[in-house]
Amino acid sequence: MENFTFWNPTKVEFGRDKEKEIGKHLEENGIKKVLLTYGSERIKKDGLFDSVAASLKAHNIHVVTLGGIVSNPLLSKVYEGINVAKAQNVDAILAVGGGSVLDSSKAIAAGTLYAGDVWDFFLGKAKIEKALPIFDIITLAATGSEMNHGAVITNDATHQKYFIQAPALFPKVSIINPQLQSSVSKEYLVYSASDVIAHCIEGYFTATTHPVFVSKQIEAIITTVMETTEKLLKNPNDDEARGEFAWAATCALNGLTHVGVAGIGFPNHMIEHAISAMCNIPHGAGLSIVMPAWMKWYRQYNEAQFTRFAKTIFGLDNAQAGIDALQAWFRKIGTPTSFSAYGIEEKRVPEIIDNAVDNAHYFGLGDMYTKEVIGEILKKAL
Amino acid sequence: MENFTFWNPTKVEFGRDKEKEIGKHLEENGIKKVLLTYGSERIKKDGLFDSVAASLKAHNIHVVTLGGIVSNPLLSKVYEGINVAKAQNVDAILAVGGGSVLDSSKAIAAGTLYAGDVWDFFLGKAKIEKALPIFDIITLAATGSEMNHGAVITNDATHQKYFIQAPALFPKVSIINPQLQSSVSKEYLVYSASDVIAHCIEGYFTATTHPVFVSKQIEAIITTVMETTEKLLKNPNDDEARGEFAWAATCALNGLTHVGVAGIGFPNHMIEHAISAMCNIPHGAGLSIVMPAWMKWYRQYNEAQFTRFAKTIFGLDNAQAGIDALQAWFRKIGTPTSFSAYGIEEKRVPEIIDNAVDNAHYFGLGDMYTKEVIGEILKKAL
Repeated sequence: MENFTFWNPTKVEFGRDKEKEIGKHLEENGIKKVLLTYGSERIKKDGLFDSVAASLKAHNIHVVTLGGIVSNPLLSKVYEGINVAKAQNVDAILAVGGGSVLDSSKAIAAGTLYAGDVWDFFLGKAKIEKALPIFDIITLAATGSEMNHGAVITNDATHQKYFIQAPALFPKVSIINPQLQSSVSKEYLVYSASDVIAHCIEGYFTATTHPVFVSKQIEAIITTVMETTEKLLKNPNDDEARGEFAWAATCALNGLTHVGVAGIGFPNHMIEHAISAMCNIPHGAGLSIVMPAWMKWYRQYNEAQFTRFAKTIFGLDNAQAGIDALQAWFRKIGTPTSFSAYGIEEKRVPEIIDNAVDNAHYFGLGDMYTKEVIGEILKKAL
Repeated sequence: MENFTFWNPTKVEFGRDKEKEIGKHLEENGIKKVLLTYGSERIKKDGLFDSVAASLKAHNIHVVTLGGIVSNPLLSKVYEGINVAKAQNVDAILAVGGGSVLDSSKAIAAGTLYAGDVWDFFLGKAKIEKALPIFDIITLAATGSEMNHGAVITNDATHQKYFIQAPALFPKVSIINPQLQSSVSKEYLVYSASDVIAHCIEGYFTATTHPVFVSKQIEAIITTVMETTEKLLKNPNDDEARGEFAWAATCALNGLTHVGVAGIGFPNHMIEHAISAMCNIPHGAGLSIVMPAWMKWYRQYNEAQFTRFAKTIFGLDNAQAGIDALQAWFRKIGTPTSFSAYGIEEKRVPEIIDNAVDNAHYFGLGDMYTKEVIGEILKKAL
């Protein structure tokens, strides 16, 4: 195994009604005024907003709100949040929503305590040294942002979908109540499954050394996500499946799947970020388009691990069969595996390639992922 | 899944030469004077003590030492440590050794900041509210103490092997350099394997509800420990196997194997603590004696999970075959599966039973584990 540091200080509060204790957690952390961030107004209709507001009020925490955060969250909204947080002098951010709301909140938390432009952090021009404390009630299991220190934001002016990572961005407390996730649409459920599987396979296949133990842990996540997705498609109110899906999603990107490995990259995310930056496709849908194509191309570099994947996930005896089985499973659950399946025209591909080439340098993968290579991969996804 | 809280703030520094950075970690945490605890004088012969002392000196950290901590660590030594820590006014404890050294250090850390008798904590008469910060360089992979908030100590006056748990007992920084563990004897390697497997199966079998995902994660640990133990018996210098064994051992008891479950108990530990308290047998050896006997008795309460265990761990199709296979594997690697195999005479059993009955109440399992039941289990272990 390679040397590593593992540190994840986020406190996870998992289960029924846990969101009703959010006021207590903020109070315990000395918070008196919070910026509550959210996406659509749905949380006001389904009672979640009222429930959270009641808990905050019971603990005498003043609330300022910022709604309207969208999927593939935008830098312009982050700027708006920073302005509100500064003007209102809040002590913390409370994200109530999915990964987009939480990632925006992380960026706001860092940007509020920084005199310069928050985008500097994304460009590597400045390092995040501090951030407002971050709390969240996560309503979509997918990104794993609830238990990690990263965030992805799209610069709406430049179409750059870039990321930040810093210890200060670990949420203090993350509330994961799987029942709050049971109203997620079937589309977003299967996109989420794709996203979690992508978090698993990036390191699994790209690591130049990969402990067998870590491979086994990743396989436990992948098979759990596959089994529970199928159960939830049949019965969205299967609480046990909903809970296991949610926790597996968190575990896919909380650091444990990346310990002791060497040389990992995130090429699927690198390419997908180009697709969603240019076409505003849901991240998980973009990933299920990219993954089978990338796997077909990348297999040559790690035949042994692809063979292992085929056997442990699908009980199949060769690498290509495993890739085909994953692609077939994506189709079966209803997440796209080609541009055409999502209605993205072939003429859009060149601009996606250009954006992905920029990402390749940004992700530190420029040597391997040239314009030609990315074109070759995307050709397999038409 | 059942509601749960997961919080584990320990920073793990894993890998080659990590112990040489211990001074930096202490300095970063503001430590100026530390109590360095250890077991035998071996660490002075093999260079580890000098290496640690050099790092501490380089960071201007004053050192007080306390050696001579034994396996099945004793309360009398904890008292000695508390006296030293108080007299010398240290800021922190640094454990250099295995689980016994670390557990003693946790008790010293709590006892030093408590005006009463540290044993009060073990008896539940007082609650641990604070402790000196704890750091460790772990030289034996087994107990998982390096990434949890528990400690087990034997009261040498009363033969009570009792435990404490408190958030203040999470180590601040744990150094796990698997290479430091390569000099562990074959006996202690296989006892360690037994200990880790015990940590896995307690919750796996006793939980009244158990998420499949958590079962899978536990199975990943068990199979990893079995595979790497066999490799290490053949080649103690197999660094990859040593690393995977060490990390799997840590993951077996860092909280992740106990999330979302209901009703778990630690009956194997409950009985084993009686054996090691009375006969001073290594903990892992005691566990490999207890486990097959307990499994044969307990199978009736969770046939489905025992059947799953047989299939996932050994590829066998019935519950009893899985138990037999584990017992055979323990024999194969050389850890005892009966009292007679370890040279414990049958006449000692009654006093072990009496001690275990006391433990049953202490572990909250008194209703199920009567004197008769414990006798029935131990009869299977003669």
